[in-house]
Amino acid sequence: MKTRLFTPGPTPVPEETLLELAKPVGYHRSAEAKAILAEVTEDLKYVFQTVHPVVTLTSSGTGGMDAAVSSTLAAGEKAILLTAGRWGERWKSALKAFGVNTVVVEVPYGQAVSPEQLQIALKEHPDAKAVFATLSETSTGVGHDIEAFGKLVAATPALLIVDGISGLGAMECRCDAWGVDIMVSGSQKALMLPPGLAYVSVSPKAKAVIDATIPRGFYFDLRRSLAKVAESDTPFTPANTLIKAQRVSLKRIRAEGIEQLWARHAKVATACRAAVTAMGLKLYAARPNNGLTVIVVPTGIDGSATLKMLEKKHGFKFADGQDNLKGVIWRLSHMGYVDAFDVLGAIAALELVLAEQGFGKVGAGVAAFQQSYAGK
Amino acid sequence: MKTRLFTPGPTPVPEETLLELAKPVGYHRSAEAKAILAEVTEDLKYVFQTVHPVVTLTSSGTGGMDAAVSSTLAAGEKAILLTAGRWGERWKSALKAFGVNTVVVEVPYGQAVSPEQLQIALKEHPDAKAVFATLSETSTGVGHDIEAFGKLVAATPALLIVDGISGLGAMECRCDAWGVDIMVSGSQKALMLPPGLAYVSVSPKAKAVIDATIPRGFYFDLRRSLAKVAESDTPFTPANTLIKAQRVSLKRIRAEGIEQLWARHAKVATACRAAVTAMGLKLYAARPNNGLTVIVVPTGIDGSATLKMLEKKHGFKFADGQDNLKGVIWRLSHMGYVDAFDVLGAIAALELVLAEQGFGKVGAGVAAFQQSYAGK
Repeated sequence: MKTRLFTPGPTPVPEETLLELAKPVGYHRSAEAKAILAEVTEDLKYVFQTVHPVVTLTSSGTGGMDAAVSSTLAAGEKAILLTAGRWGERWKSALKAFGVNTVVVEVPYGQAVSPEQLQIALKEHPDAKAVFATLSETSTGVGHDIEAFGKLVAATPALLIVDGISGLGAMECRCDAWGVDIMVSGSQKALMLPPGLAYVSVSPKAKAVIDATIPRGFYFDLRRSLAKVAESDTPFTPANTLIKAQRVSLKRIRAEGIEQLWARHAKVATACRAAVTAMGLKLYAARPNNGLTVIVVPTGIDGSATLKMLEKKHGFKFADGQDNLKGVIWRLSHMGYVDAFDVLGAIAALELVLAEQGFGKVGAGVAAFQQSYAGK
Repeated sequence: MKTRLFTPGPTPVPEETLLELAKPVGYHRSAEAKAILAEVTEDLKYVFQTVHPVVTLTSSGTGGMDAAVSSTLAAGEKAILLTAGRWGERWKSALKAFGVNTVVVEVPYGQAVSPEQLQIALKEHPDAKAVFATLSETSTGVGHDIEAFGKLVAATPALLIVDGISGLGAMECRCDAWGVDIMVSGSQKALMLPPGLAYVSVSPKAKAVIDATIPRGFYFDLRRSLAKVAESDTPFTPANTLIKAQRVSLKRIRAEGIEQLWARHAKVATACRAAVTAMGLKLYAARPNNGLTVIVVPTGIDGSATLKMLEKKHGFKFADGQDNLKGVIWRLSHMGYVDAFDVLGAIAALELVLAEQGFGKVGAGVAAFQQSYAGK
């Protein structure tokens, strides 16, 4: 049986990128290694839509979040956190670990934080040094209006620090134009690589704060990374085979073009949502993003058991809800190296296992997907 | 031209491990992923010679050093640092970043810190909470007597925290029997994987200190990793393809046996030293370790130019000295997936480029290598 990965990270990796990973390892301080990092950095800037530095950290995306917090805030300093799910809570844990005085602006799971909520918080807390937000709240499928957040934060001395680990590359995001000061992303989502690298962009406004802050960490001290990225180098041994392979996946993005990439994700996401609705299912996210579709498990269906059936019978691996949402939602990722025909297959498989359990009838979802995709 | 890597990290990776890296990516929270991490953890315990937990961090080895410092020491607390080169200085930088009151016991490059020096320091500083040491000081080729250090530290309340990033697996080291409380290692040296993973073992004595210390970091908070490793899981998305590939390289070590692995490295290192001496060259390290051979560049020879010739003419990549030692020493690694015949080739290539520059005559080195290896 063929197996297909639809989890919102890791995501499928292009074959030519995987083959790059099988090549012999080189020395990470050679001129060739520097040239590769320089190329990757340039291509990352394109994906981030920034002209400012993007540093590569050897870590999970959470390492990038650690770096963003620990390099900009002293204990006791104030930050506003916009949270709409588990990844907002990841920011909360990181902020707590570093003793940041965190003002939490929270909405129920499935909802998005509104720009109005941020506006009120900024007014009430003019001393906030940073605002933390999440581009794609992958635990619920919500996408945030980072552009609107950026306009509000840009008018204040605060930094806008965004977790774009799973959103960047799957939905429109223009770091410079939108006023994102620090954007954190990861290799294993829309950037089409296995996990192991985090990427952090730093605006001049953020750079000034970093330079004026006593860093809280060592490995994640962004000053060290920024000093080295200027010479196309890293302060510590990087995962150089992953960097070399990232170059291959980034070339794929470059060849397609960032606007085309966003448009393709939007088209597939729209078709997927049409399919879900046509199947008599509900979307969980009030403001869905284009990286994944989160579906509410219908009454009478065992959500987790259905995912096991999907995997066992048809080889499709969706993600379950996390923590309290386990069995309550299904998460179907369509970011990165996943195209419309892949997602059509996933819809077909879901229809099959639901019909087997007496829910709905086969065909409605795939037909709606096709019609939406054809622009009808 | 064939190219061959003899840098002391990254080191060559076995073909079957590289091919594992080219396989499709799986979901990191699946039962299969947990089973793989459980297996890797067991095999790491074998390599570390410990029955206590070994956690896997997605980071460079330096990330493991950050975790060791930030999880055990508060700012202002005292630690003794034994340093004999650049990697001891890496500890120093990490300790400084976390505001640790560091008592530095230093020897000149090329020398090893003696157990007597540690004994004096422990007597003078009974309030030291930890002693930091380096197993293989890869910048100079020195190996430290960790067994003797362990005996001294075990008699005190201090922890013995060792950087074994490049030494572990290349030279005898028994964490439990020798009293190493925290051992930090990395994937890209004797463990035969590309860079990207750090491994940290934690003794019960260290665990008690970690539990009683307010952690300084988030991503590198060892309490989080320890809580998860007990369930064969990780707190944050791990570099799961590297972990899966590490399993393959660890099986190779298991199949050979750890004592045989140490003995093989010792035999190759002994032959390499015999070759160097026979060539009329000098060893840089007063107490050489078995992971690499560090050679003094002879008078009249341009060290860096020679390495360039080696690479350009014969495809052999040695490492230059770092910082002040650039052009002063050559570093030839023989750890991990490198056997006697590989090193013999490296000696042959070095003889060729030296003879071309009028130094020595071809044949002495390889003959001495062969004789030593044959046990004559």
